[in-house]
Amino acid sequence: MTTRLPAFTAGAALLGLFMFTDSAPADEGMWLFNNLPHAQLKKHNFEPDVKWLDHVRLSSVRFNSGGSGSFVSPDGLVMTNHHVGAGDLEKVSTPEKNYLRDGFMAKNRKEEIPCKGLELNVLIGIKVVTDEIEKAVPAGTPAADAVKARQKKIAEIEKAAADPEKNIRADVVTLFAGGQYHLYTFKKYTDIRIVFAPEKQIAFFGGDADNFEYPRYDLDMCFFRVYEKGEPIKCEHYLTWSPNGSKAGDLVFVSGHPGRTTRANTVDELKYLRDTGYPYLLNRLNRLEVLLNSWGVRSEQNMQRAEEELFSIQNSRKARIGGLAGLMDPALLGRKIADQKRLEAYIAKAETPETKAAAGAIETIGKAEKVRAELIKEMTVLENGSGFNSHSFGIARTLARAAEELPKPNGERLREFGEARIPSLKQQLLSDEPIFEDLEILKLADGLQFLAITLGPDSDLVKKVLAGKSPRERAYELISGTKVRDPKFREKLFDAITAAAKDGKPVDPAVLKDPMIELAQLVDPASRALRKRFENEVDEPKRQAHSALAKAKFAMDGDKVYPDATFTLRLAFGTVKGYKEDGKEVPPYTTFDGLYKRSAEQGNKGAFELPKRWVERKSKLDLATPFNFVCTADIIGGNSGSPVVNREGQVVGLIFDGNIQSLVLDFIYDSETARAVSVDSRAIIESLRKVYDANDLADELTGKKK
Amino acid sequence: MTTRLPAFTAGAALLGLFMFTDSAPADEGMWLFNNLPHAQLKKHNFEPDVKWLDHVRLSSVRFNSGGSGSFVSPDGLVMTNHHVGAGDLEKVSTPEKNYLRDGFMAKNRKEEIPCKGLELNVLIGIKVVTDEIEKAVPAGTPAADAVKARQKKIAEIEKAAADPEKNIRADVVTLFAGGQYHLYTFKKYTDIRIVFAPEKQIAFFGGDADNFEYPRYDLDMCFFRVYEKGEPIKCEHYLTWSPNGSKAGDLVFVSGHPGRTTRANTVDELKYLRDTGYPYLLNRLNRLEVLLNSWGVRSEQNMQRAEEELFSIQNSRKARIGGLAGLMDPALLGRKIADQKRLEAYIAKAETPETKAAAGAIETIGKAEKVRAELIKEMTVLENGSGFNSHSFGIARTLARAAEELPKPNGERLREFGEARIPSLKQQLLSDEPIFEDLEILKLADGLQFLAITLGPDSDLVKKVLAGKSPRERAYELISGTKVRDPKFREKLFDAITAAAKDGKPVDPAVLKDPMIELAQLVDPASRALRKRFENEVDEPKRQAHSALAKAKFAMDGDKVYPDATFTLRLAFGTVKGYKEDGKEVPPYTTFDGLYKRSAEQGNKGAFELPKRWVERKSKLDLATPFNFVCTADIIGGNSGSPVVNREGQVVGLIFDGNIQSLVLDFIYDSETARAVSVDSRAIIESLRKVYDANDLADELTGKKK
Repeated sequence: MTTRLPAFTAGAALLGLFMFTDSAPADEGMWLFNNLPHAQLKKHNFEPDVKWLDHVRLSSVRFNSGGSGSFVSPDGLVMTNHHVGAGDLEKVSTPEKNYLRDGFMAKNRKEEIPCKGLELNVLIGIKVVTDEIEKAVPAGTPAADAVKARQKKIAEIEKAAADPEKNIRADVVTLFAGGQYHLYTFKKYTDIRIVFAPEKQIAFFGGDADNFEYPRYDLDMCFFRVYEKGEPIKCEHYLTWSPNGSKAGDLVFVSGHPGRTTRANTVDELKYLRDTGYPYLLNRLNRLEVLLNSWGVRSEQNMQRAEEELFSIQNSRKARIGGLAGLMDPALLGRKIADQKRLEAYIAKAETPETKAAAGAIETIGKAEKVRAELIKEMTVLENGSGFNSHSFGIARTLARAAEELPKPNGERLREFGEARIPSLKQQLLSDEPIFEDLEILKLADGLQFLAITLGPDSDLVKKVLAGKSPRERAYELISGTKVRDPKFREKLFDAITAAAKDGKPVDPAVLKDPMIELAQLVDPASRALRKRFENEVDEPKRQAHSALAKAKFAMDGDKVYPDATFTLRLAFGTVKGYKEDGKEVPPYTTFDGLYKRSAEQGNKGAFELPKRWVERKSKLDLATPFNFVCTADIIGGNSGSPVVNREGQVVGLIFDGNIQSLVLDFIYDSETARAVSVDSRAIIESLRKVYDANDLADELTGKKK
Repeated sequence: MTTRLPAFTAGAALLGLFMFTDSAPADEGMWLFNNLPHAQLKKHNFEPDVKWLDHVRLSSVRFNSGGSGSFVSPDGLVMTNHHVGAGDLEKVSTPEKNYLRDGFMAKNRKEEIPCKGLELNVLIGIKVVTDEIEKAVPAGTPAADAVKARQKKIAEIEKAAADPEKNIRADVVTLFAGGQYHLYTFKKYTDIRIVFAPEKQIAFFGGDADNFEYPRYDLDMCFFRVYEKGEPIKCEHYLTWSPNGSKAGDLVFVSGHPGRTTRANTVDELKYLRDTGYPYLLNRLNRLEVLLNSWGVRSEQNMQRAEEELFSIQNSRKARIGGLAGLMDPALLGRKIADQKRLEAYIAKAETPETKAAAGAIETIGKAEKVRAELIKEMTVLENGSGFNSHSFGIARTLARAAEELPKPNGERLREFGEARIPSLKQQLLSDEPIFEDLEILKLADGLQFLAITLGPDSDLVKKVLAGKSPRERAYELISGTKVRDPKFREKLFDAITAAAKDGKPVDPAVLKDPMIELAQLVDPASRALRKRFENEVDEPKRQAHSALAKAKFAMDGDKVYPDATFTLRLAFGTVKGYKEDGKEVPPYTTFDGLYKRSAEQGNKGAFELPKRWVERKSKLDLATPFNFVCTADIIGGNSGSPVVNREGQVVGLIFDGNIQSLVLDFIYDSETARAVSVDSRAIIESLRKVYDANDLADELTGKKK
């Protein structure tokens, strides 16, 4: 589940920074298709030609829901992960037919189910437009004018390249933090239909227990078909199936859309994460996991209400544990330190405008990280997330702030209340997703206690918030007293707020009379002051310093390196290879036999219970079939569903996860133990034929004529 | 499970301090049998006479394994909790017969199973000997001489009162921190046999999920019989069964042995716990719970290896959450503040030697608590517990320190290496309890990471400890390299250490050549320095200040109050009464019907699965029978197994737990929501007759003639 695109968070990382590779291992990199590391590849005796690259790129697909995929037949068949398709399976399920849980098989094309709102993009063209854009912004242009001039040029270029009638989309993509601009043109598809999905129990076999772990036994696959004008499209480019699959030591390639890396982090930023950010976040995740789990086990209803959030907490917790373990490895940090020294030396020696601008930038970031460490705990309890860990409080705060912000001119509002964001803000605010009173009391009581621990129970603000009561009593009083859980109440209120703002009047305070909204108003001055300090003393200095550093790095290395991941198409490569853990060899492949053993060893229970079909068909399966495998390719969230291909560009696997050691890839590549985890192409065919009797689909994949 | 005596921890609390009651609610108190609050009881229209008190006291039994009980028949039948008897049930179980899990029923007296090493005590005499002891220590005696003179006198008194031939034990008990000395004489019994125990599934129905919770449905009972010279004893005093049980509003009494309270804590000490101690401990417990649980779910073998420790962590976690919630209640803390103000005013006004000595004591404690807050994190990682959370490291440290300490004169050694403690130290060290390599790697890796987070990964000590490796790599290297997991290796080493010490020689360093022992030696200087600072700046000033405060309090209130719990016999009283939680009434009684509903609602699974017998006999049971109930009596760990009696001294219940709100009773009594939880006497009889066909036992309890 790791490699699905995580929700983007704002910050320097989104600038599209890049990283040094002087001391980098040979298989490092999420490379641009138009800028491959040919020297590195030569070491593998591989020199891809334009035809190979075009073929792989044009067979790759981006899921706008956050994931990757590939065309795998001439008739528009697309392969991705079950967990990438999960949202779509859920949307087309009904109370009678739970396709997400039970799987789906279209017997013929007529049975293929159209998705709701799914969009796929294929990158059909890349053109470097750096010069054009730079020409539009002559040196010496004042900053504000430069931004405008650049945006104008970008809009021109995009407009000229786009062709809405033919579903051609054009985006100018910023890479290397502005070091390069590329024009990407996409073919956009919107009629996508579900062809096949296995049961969730086999797609996510082992559940949270085995998530991010290896050895692994998951059939995390899902097939869609792309239609245009009611007919399956005819693909010129699609990946064919490898007749023999892969073996240990093989060079393989991953073509997909890694979402976000922050490899441009300075050493101080990594140390902040290692010493403060991650330990603190893990404390909070542990606290919430224990809270929800111990409440969940008290009744089945409790667990139903808590489990979605609980799973997401467990997923985050595992990811952070893996990341922290990597940050604690002196060898990895040592490489980062060496890279930074090289850059510092370059900045100190070279005398270009870029290096001059970058002088002191690393120190500025270090200073900002100190402030961040100082503020993070208060920021977390007062400003970040939904507030006191309560959905109700989060809603109340949005309403209280809307009343304050909307009467202001657009440019002076808090970011999230900008005119352009109002529709999605409203949609979120009026969602009728159920909010459970008992769970809210539990979480708010915990959140208020956490506030008291963070600021001190004797602090003025805490005393005002708790109003002389214990956290539990106060939470009960607030949750049972507020009306914000009712979407109609929220709608009425929001309408009153927008109406008043339109008339240029302040909102009548009587309208906002609700205990939770009043609490939000009470906390808001402290919360806003903190946010302002964080923006001024952490975010903004870092943004400027990172921009200067990125330019210095580009002056030093140019595009000999790869840019940080930005959910644009990349090619990674690596070797099929096991690793060592606690002195033991972890072999690269698992088999169906291992699946049945793992299930038996866990008593065939819970997340280890096999679907009925898998129990019944066991004797039909070749149990020696490779099921999952690992390789050293450099991937991250967003790569879910990426095809793994061999030197011939043939499918040998399907990326679906990373091992726990791979979670450090956010910051730095590691080839020792970090591994990408794939479904083996042979397991896909064997299970389609022997478990699902889906011979038509298997034939389509393997190109067998009927 | 709460009310079993927790392991005692050293500290001021063991002095037997006491607490103020000026602002105390009417049902507060763990009273001495020879010093009851008659005015408080009068409010309940109850005036117990000497006969009533003697009868209840002489029917009460103390389990030396840590718990309470009572005689409930003329033939030496003793009632207690299943969880008090659990250790004894386990000791007599065999691979074929698991009495702890499956229960036990003796069909006749011959089948009753003798326990191994169980001792019961009955308090047969209390004599106030304060004057005698004080006379032996004339005013003005220098401190060191005073201690000796007092101990001499105590030994004299004890010797004169004891009668080993008749199994009469005599202990002088220190109460009110030395304000009073009482001579307790006990009748000691050592031939104790198991009569009846139900299945653990019904005794601890709901497991950790329902532990400390209410409503509750547990048959947490166990029966023993006391023998002398091969025959059941004949009891003059035993509790008879109430024919009608209890009802809401009834006054009830609990006679038992509360283990330890710290109600003499100053406000600064409570704030330390509230602001630092408990939040920090909860972070650690959450971290360990998540660590062990997420490892446990990966395989059944993992869970078997982790579950005992996991349960104990969950139990502690719940207890601390309850305690912290109480500390966060401004009303409770307000009472403590008021009490302390009264004492401060008394100290300021009165001009006795006691008040003069107590001047500044509260400030001294406050100062010590600040140092404690400053040191606690380092103390925790370096000195407390087993060290880095690893059993192997704990053993290695004991060996490394033994080599250093044993050659020293007895008086100069670290406390735990004193001559008198060597036998138990050796026994612990040579235990052949299995230590699992995989679990040890997991825990040590986590412990080393926690060390790095606490001291900073860049600190010199951490760098030395990790030796350039990541915590996980280092843990693997240490655990796979050490031999300390082998009891024979430990024995050989310990023998070499003691032999060298006897010869007055230092231990040959080659003997101690083991990576884990070398790590312990590496860490020890820092660890010892910290411990010394803690003892000098926290423990010792607090001990002296508390002693002075206790004397001032005794001068103020004398024995109008009750002393802190010290595992001596106490009488508590209270009302059968529900409480309010989140605006809802929690009724005082549950029923068998509720048991079946709770099990069904939880899918009859896991800790909620009913024993077979309970499923089969459902139709025979009167489902309206009260099963568990709550009352406001003031109890704490050690009270487990205490009888609950009515005004007539008849059994109406059996204490086995407190609700989560009762966990604040460590520090302060609360009658609003804190409740003691009992098995109802009617449920005991109904289940014995209808579920277990144990009519003989039921007849014996209810005094029915055959």
